[in-house]
Amino acid sequence: MSFTQSHLLGIEPLSPADITALLDLSEAYVDLNRSEEKHSQALTGLTQINMFFENSTRTQASFELAGKRLGADVMNMSMQASSIKKGETLIDTALTLNAMHPDLLVVRHPHSGAVDLLAQKVNCAVLNAGDGRHEHPTQALLDALTIRRAKGRLHRLNIAICGDIAHSRVARSNIMLLGKMENRIRLIGPPTLMPSQISEFGVEVYEDMKEGLEGVDVVMMLRLQKERMDGGFIPSEREYYHRYGLDAEKLAYAKEDAIVMHPGPMNRGVEIDGTIADDINRSVIQEQVEMGVAVRMAAMDALARNLRARRFNSRAAMGTLV
Amino acid sequence: MSFTQSHLLGIEPLSPADITALLDLSEAYVDLNRSEEKHSQALTGLTQINMFFENSTRTQASFELAGKRLGADVMNMSMQASSIKKGETLIDTALTLNAMHPDLLVVRHPHSGAVDLLAQKVNCAVLNAGDGRHEHPTQALLDALTIRRAKGRLHRLNIAICGDIAHSRVARSNIMLLGKMENRIRLIGPPTLMPSQISEFGVEVYEDMKEGLEGVDVVMMLRLQKERMDGGFIPSEREYYHRYGLDAEKLAYAKEDAIVMHPGPMNRGVEIDGTIADDINRSVIQEQVEMGVAVRMAAMDALARNLRARRFNSRAAMGTLV
Amino acid sequence: MSFTQSHLLGIEPLSPADITALLDLSEAYVDLNRSEEKHSQALTGLTQINMFFENSTRTQASFELAGKRLGADVMNMSMQASSIKKGETLIDTALTLNAMHPDLLVVRHPHSGAVDLLAQKVNCAVLNAGDGRHEHPTQALLDALTIRRAKGRLHRLNIAICGDIAHSRVARSNIMLLGKMENRIRLIGPPTLMPSQISEFGVEVYEDMKEGLEGVDVVMMLRLQKERMDGGFIPSEREYYHRYGLDAEKLAYAKEDAIVMHPGPMNRGVEIDGTIADDINRSVIQEQVEMGVAVRMAAMDALARNLRARRFNSRAAMGTLV
Repeated sequence: MSFTQSHLLGIEPLSPADITALLDLSEAYVDLNRSEEKHSQALTGLTQINMFFENSTRTQASFELAGKRLGADVMNMSMQASSIKKGETLIDTALTLNAMHPDLLVVRHPHSGAVDLLAQKVNCAVLNAGDGRHEHPTQALLDALTIRRAKGRLHRLNIAICGDIAHSRVARSNIMLLGKMENRIRLIGPPTLMPSQISEFGVEVYEDMKEGLEGVDVVMMLRLQKERMDGGFIPSEREYYHRYGLDAEKLAYAKEDAIVMHPGPMNRGVEIDGTIADDINRSVIQEQVEMGVAVRMAAMDALARNLRARRFNSRAAMGTLV
Repeated sequence: MSFTQSHLLGIEPLSPADITALLDLSEAYVDLNRSEEKHSQALTGLTQINMFFENSTRTQASFELAGKRLGADVMNMSMQASSIKKGETLIDTALTLNAMHPDLLVVRHPHSGAVDLLAQKVNCAVLNAGDGRHEHPTQALLDALTIRRAKGRLHRLNIAICGDIAHSRVARSNIMLLGKMENRIRLIGPPTLMPSQISEFGVEVYEDMKEGLEGVDVVMMLRLQKERMDGGFIPSEREYYHRYGLDAEKLAYAKEDAIVMHPGPMNRGVEIDGTIADDINRSVIQEQVEMGVAVRMAAMDALARNLRARRFNSRAAMGTLV
Repeated sequence: MSFTQSHLLGIEPLSPADITALLDLSEAYVDLNRSEEKHSQALTGLTQINMFFENSTRTQASFELAGKRLGADVMNMSMQASSIKKGETLIDTALTLNAMHPDLLVVRHPHSGAVDLLAQKVNCAVLNAGDGRHEHPTQALLDALTIRRAKGRLHRLNIAICGDIAHSRVARSNIMLLGKMENRIRLIGPPTLMPSQISEFGVEVYEDMKEGLEGVDVVMMLRLQKERMDGGFIPSEREYYHRYGLDAEKLAYAKEDAIVMHPGPMNRGVEIDGTIADDINRSVIQEQVEMGVAVRMAAMDALARNLRARRFNSRAAMGTLV
C-alpha cells in the first residue's frame, strides 16, 4: 500500500499514488460487499466515532455500515443535540472525544476548515465527511472508482460537472481529484452558480449545456442546493430544468457511451430527468452509492494500518515495546 | 422449515404451515433469550437496516435487539430526518439503501402498501414493521405465540378483539392470522370504530362488551389510537372506559381462565383497568413483549435462510459457484 | 472482587471496599483502552440498554463505548421520542424493556429517585447515569479514580468543591464518596447556590474562594447549571466569574501541586478560566473523561459478574442446573 496519510481531510493533500492505492483497495471491498459474508476483522478492537454536525442520512449510513462490516466498535454522536448547545466549543468537544480513545473519527461540519482544525487536536485518524463548501473527499473517491470501473481508466477523460458548482464541496473535491489524475474538466452552469476563482482550477467553463456536453465521457450532475443559497439568486426550478436539467436532448451531445452521475439525493425534474436517472445503460447513480461503502471501508482500513504503524513506531522509539 | 417466503410483508400471503413454522422456530429463540448467553451467529456477516418512517420506540427496539442477538450488523435510519425531507422519493431512498447491499430491511411507514412497493424494488428480504392501517405481521405472530403458549393450542379458540378496530393494523393482521388457524373471532367496539367492510373477515360483531366477551378464551384489547382519528368521532375517554374499557366486571363474562392481551403502549384507565393489566394470573402483556423479540429473531433467521438459498441457486444457475 | 452490589444506584449504598474494588478494576480498563486492541469479551452474550430521559451526549457516549468495548449487544433508546409521549407510565416502560431480557440497564432521568424506583421493577442490573438532583455515581467514581491516580491516594486529602452545589448531583455523589474515603471536604459558593441541609454532610462551607481554596489538594469546579435554576436567583455570568470563576489568582491559594477538575461541559470564562482548563500541569479535565469510560467498563463488568452469580445460584436452588 502506498497510501501514506494520517488523515483523510481532503483530496488536496493526496498524491496520485495515494488515490490509486485507495481505489485499488476499494475493489477488494466491492467484492466483499457482494459476497455472502460481508464482514471482516480489519478494524476489530478499534473504535470509530461518527460526529455529524450536519444531518446526512446517506453519508452517515455509508460510514456506519463500512465500520460495522470491518468489525469496528461504531458509535454515532448526534451533535445537533449535544453539549455544543450547552455552550461547549468545538475544540472542547474534540478533546473530550479524544480522551475516550477513538481510533477513527468521521466528521461532517457546516464550516469549511472545521475538520482540519479538529484533526490537529486529536491523536486518531480523522476522516472528513464534508466540511462547508470546502471538501468531501470520500465522495470524490467513490465517483472516481465508479468512473474507473465504467470507463476502464481514470485519465484522459472528458468530464463535465454541471449545475450548482459554487455551493458544492462535491464539485470542489472532484475537480481536484480528476485534475490530479489528468482528466479534462468542464464546468457547466449559470454564472451565478460558478465559484468566483475558477481560473485556479485549470478547467473550462461553459454557460450552455449542449456546448459543454459536446463529446464528453462523463456527465456529473450536481444537486441544486437551495439550503445553501443565502439570500442571493435562486433560480425557478422550471427555468433551471429548462436550461440546465439533464434530459435526453442535452445528453445526446455527449459521447454515445457517456455515463451519467449524481451524488444524491436527486431532485427529479429539477437537475435531472427521471427517465435518464433510471436508465441502467447510462446512469451509474446506484453504483455510486455501492462504491461509497467500499471506498469508505478502504479509507478506514488504510488509515487504521497507518495509525497502527505510527503507534508501533512510537512505542518502539520509547522502548516500551514488549 | 416449511417457511418459504422471501419477505414478511403481511399475514395475508402466509399459509398455516408458514405460520406454524415461524412459531416453532420462535420457541427456540424464547429459550435463547432466557439463557445466560443470549447471542447466536445466525445472521453473522449479514446487514440489517431498520427504516422507521414513523416513530416506534418499542417495535424498533425489539427488531434491533433481535438482529444484534443474532449477530447481524444492525443500522437504524431515522427516516424523519432524512433525504425524504430534501425531496427524495421513497423509491429513490429504497434504491439507495439497496445499493449498500443490506440483507434484511425492516420498514415501518405511515402509508398502507408502501412496504410492499418498496419490497419490489430491492434485492433483499423485507419485513413489514407496520404500514398505515394495512398490516403489522410480527405483532400478529407474537400474539399467536403468546396465545399458543398460554392455551396450549392455536385453533378452535374463542377470541375477542376489542376497541378501536377501524384504525388498527394490529387488529387486521390478527384477524387474518387467527382466522387462518381456524379460530372464532369476535370484534367488539362502537360502530364508529368498526371497519366498513367487516363481512369479508368472517367474524362476529358486537357492540356490547359483556355480550361479546361471554365465554371467550382470549380478550385482546387495542390501544385507542387518537393520533389516527382525523377529524371524525373521538369518544371522551371517560365514556369510552365506561362502555369499552376492560374492568373486572366485564372480564367476568369471559371464561374463568381467559387471558388478557394488549399490544402496548397502554392507556391505563382508558381501554384497560390498571389492576387487570398487572394481574399476572390473567394478563400476558409482558409475555407479549418477550415473544416479540423471539418472533422477530425467528422471522429474520427464516428469511435469511431463504435469501441465502435463493442466492446460492442463482449463482449455481449462472455457473458462478466456486 | 469485594464489590457485592446488584445495582449501581448511587454512592450512598456503597462501602469503602465496594469503591476500592471498582477503582482497582477500573485500572485494568484504563490499560485496555490505551492498548492496541481495546475490546474484551467480558459482556459477550449480554444486552445493555441505555435509556436517557434527559439528553447527555457525553455520558451516553461513555456508557455506549464502555459496553461495546466489553462485547455487549448495546442499544440506545431515545426516550424523548418514545411511548412516554403516548401516555405510557415510567413503570410500564420499565416492564416492557424488562420483558426483552436486558442484563444491564443504564438510566438517566430528570426526577430524583426515578432510577431507584425502576430498579425495583426489573430483573437486571441497573446503573444510575444521573437522576434529578440526587446522584450521579459513575461521575463520582471517575473523579475518585482521577484523584487517586494524580495524588497517589484517595484519603486525607483537602478537596474543595466550588460553585453551583445546590443544583448538582455531581457534587452530592462526590461529597458522599470523598467523605466515605475520609477526606476533608470544603464547599465554596454563594449562599444561594448552597443546598439547604449542608450540616448532614460533615463538610466545611465557605463563601469566599480564596479563603476556601487555601491549602487544598484538589479544586473541583462545577458547571453553572442555568437550565436547572427555575425562577430563582440567576447570577450574571460576569459577576459570577469575578467572584467564583477559577482564575490564576484564586488558584494560587491552593497547594502548589493542586489539581483542577471539571465534570464538563465547561463554560469557559464563567466558572473557569480557559488558560487554567488547558494547563496540562494543573488540569486533569481530559483525564476525567478518559477515566469515565474505564470506570463504566468496571462497573458494568462487576455488576454482570454479580448478576451471573445470582442467576447461577437461583437455578441451583431451583434444581434446574444442567
